[in-house]
Amino acid sequence: MSSSVDKPNCITCKAMVAWEAGKDLVMEEVEVSPPQPHEIRIKVVCTSLCRTDITAWESQAIFPRIFGHEASGIVESVGEGVTEFVEGDHVLTVFIGECKMCKHCESGKSNMCQVLGLERRGVMHSDQRTRFSIEGKPVYHYCAVSSFSEYTVVHSGCAVKVSLQAPLEKICLLSCGVAAGLGAAWNVADISKGSTLVVFGLGTVGLAVAQGAKLRGASQIIGVDINPEKYKKAFGVTDFLNPNDYEEPIQQVIKRISGGGTDYSFECIGNTGMVTTALQSCCDGWGLTVTLGVPKVKPEIESHYSAFLSGKTLKGSLFGGWKPKSDLPELVNKYMNQEIQIDEFITHNLPFEDINKAFTLMKEGKCLRCVIHMPN
Amino acid sequence: MSSSVDKPNCITCKAMVAWEAGKDLVMEEVEVSPPQPHEIRIKVVCTSLCRTDITAWESQAIFPRIFGHEASGIVESVGEGVTEFVEGDHVLTVFIGECKMCKHCESGKSNMCQVLGLERRGVMHSDQRTRFSIEGKPVYHYCAVSSFSEYTVVHSGCAVKVSLQAPLEKICLLSCGVAAGLGAAWNVADISKGSTLVVFGLGTVGLAVAQGAKLRGASQIIGVDINPEKYKKAFGVTDFLNPNDYEEPIQQVIKRISGGGTDYSFECIGNTGMVTTALQSCCDGWGLTVTLGVPKVKPEIESHYSAFLSGKTLKGSLFGGWKPKSDLPELVNKYMNQEIQIDEFITHNLPFEDINKAFTLMKEGKCLRCVIHMPN
Repeated sequence: MSSSVDKPNCITCKAMVAWEAGKDLVMEEVEVSPPQPHEIRIKVVCTSLCRTDITAWESQAIFPRIFGHEASGIVESVGEGVTEFVEGDHVLTVFIGECKMCKHCESGKSNMCQVLGLERRGVMHSDQRTRFSIEGKPVYHYCAVSSFSEYTVVHSGCAVKVSLQAPLEKICLLSCGVAAGLGAAWNVADISKGSTLVVFGLGTVGLAVAQGAKLRGASQIIGVDINPEKYKKAFGVTDFLNPNDYEEPIQQVIKRISGGGTDYSFECIGNTGMVTTALQSCCDGWGLTVTLGVPKVKPEIESHYSAFLSGKTLKGSLFGGWKPKSDLPELVNKYMNQEIQIDEFITHNLPFEDINKAFTLMKEGKCLRCVIHMPN
Repeated sequence: MSSSVDKPNCITCKAMVAWEAGKDLVMEEVEVSPPQPHEIRIKVVCTSLCRTDITAWESQAIFPRIFGHEASGIVESVGEGVTEFVEGDHVLTVFIGECKMCKHCESGKSNMCQVLGLERRGVMHSDQRTRFSIEGKPVYHYCAVSSFSEYTVVHSGCAVKVSLQAPLEKICLLSCGVAAGLGAAWNVADISKGSTLVVFGLGTVGLAVAQGAKLRGASQIIGVDINPEKYKKAFGVTDFLNPNDYEEPIQQVIKRISGGGTDYSFECIGNTGMVTTALQSCCDGWGLTVTLGVPKVKPEIESHYSAFLSGKTLKGSLFGGWKPKSDLPELVNKYMNQEIQIDEFITHNLPFEDINKAFTLMKEGKCLRCVIHMPN
């Protein structure tokens, strides 16, 4: 039986609302409903901007909407039936949840929760409604997280309790980008010691792949980006290639410098044409291409059948194959034990009201992660 | 030092020669050179017709040519430096060889021999010349095997010694089709007990996949073909689907009867559009599509990126991942021990002179394997 004492009320707080595709977010007063059964309301502490927020903001049609899906916060109140969280718990939000009961959650081989999977319609999984409103009119969610708000409501399966000692202003990057890259390297590709790889796109996800590969003892980590500023040797990249510096197709350069193609290739841009290039860059026989990006245009991946007949494999990765509740606490521990780097991905810290500046920095390729700090 | 005693001479024998794309083969007297260093000359005993012979005969431009790549025979003579074979050895020919020295042969994970890989130009790997001629003019090889001839010359790395007890008129099917299907199921997909799969195309390769799956204890084996005669329950197919019997796309039917998509799907037709369908037919999270076919038209495989983002994998299979020299003798043993079926794939036995009849039967979908018996 749930208690009716101290039942949470509606909160009014500030949120950065997107009213139109591609137009600056606007700070608004929004009402945030109390958490419904099996939901929690979170006071967001930090949220970082991910490229996927921008892609959706530029191209999708659901407005008004509160974006943001990579975040950390503190539980403010819990809905009926929630036993896992209490007020004051520190949490990471996650854009794919873990119900722990469906076929996929129960399997040892998938993080595609069938109950709390990727939410695309801007509403909550449970009742297809929103928890945000302005003057009674609904404001839509993004990926069932919506962290560009002082308070947000998420399903309890879409939050992960973390150690009170972990710095929320850093570990928010494990809510998506850094975890996605590490998981692609470790869980999806299972990179082996001494192997070679190429990473297309040296944003946070691509550089986290490189970090994961370095920690596995890869011998050659080729990074490809048209933005030379993104080359960060610290993350393990051994060879940097800017396709604009070469007359010949970049896959030929990669095959040459890797002795016939790399063992692995990772597409971290969100460009389906680049998936084809990635396939052409890895070796026959056992070459594995992992695609992580969400393309803005042309959703079809194309490749000549001979790439596959010669023994190559193409595999996708969503959130690096991590089961969020089961696996994220251990990643947080690894950070606390200095086994993985996060701080180095944070190029900017900005107050909430400057969130549009983060959008500009990312669109211009001038940042890795901008961490947005909410007011106290 | 090689001996100059009993050096083999040129042989004149009968071969079925293709003079033009898609035109009946013509029986001709051909000269077959002595085996060159590291080559062997084989008296072909049986050769079966594979769909790939037909695809190449219909679409390629290299003529005159001797097709045939799925064959058994007896070593007639050996070239300099050959220590593995002696006259009288029983062998299977193989269309991808195993040099045992290159990076891929030495790896435990690839059968893409870099020295004796798929030969596409109609010549021998070693000197880019032919061993067949008619009145001094070259007649081209196919896949460096060319078994539609009483005698042929192959690189010693493209033949596998087999037990003298094994019936050459049956085991020739392990030279390509049956081995390719079993290997796709066992080596490439590594089908697990209790799992579900769908096989597109119930020719010899597809039915061999089904047999392999059955032997691994798969619980549901869905077979898809527009030719209902190809449904052979004996090979383990539990559900047969003819796409022409359904108004809705076949992938929807498959998803429904398999509870959300199969664990594995196999494209055994040689149709890149069907690879897309196969990807759509397997489940999110861990669905694996294996492509085995060589397409006649449209060599580009296309698929929406979301198939991969939801955790699917696309993998190719050439000769089922078998390393021919290392692995085929054990497959022959399995047949001798009645652990695998071969005889059931042989729907027709034909004398050499009737080889064009085999082409017609296969084009009309009226056979699985036609075994061509050479004259004694």
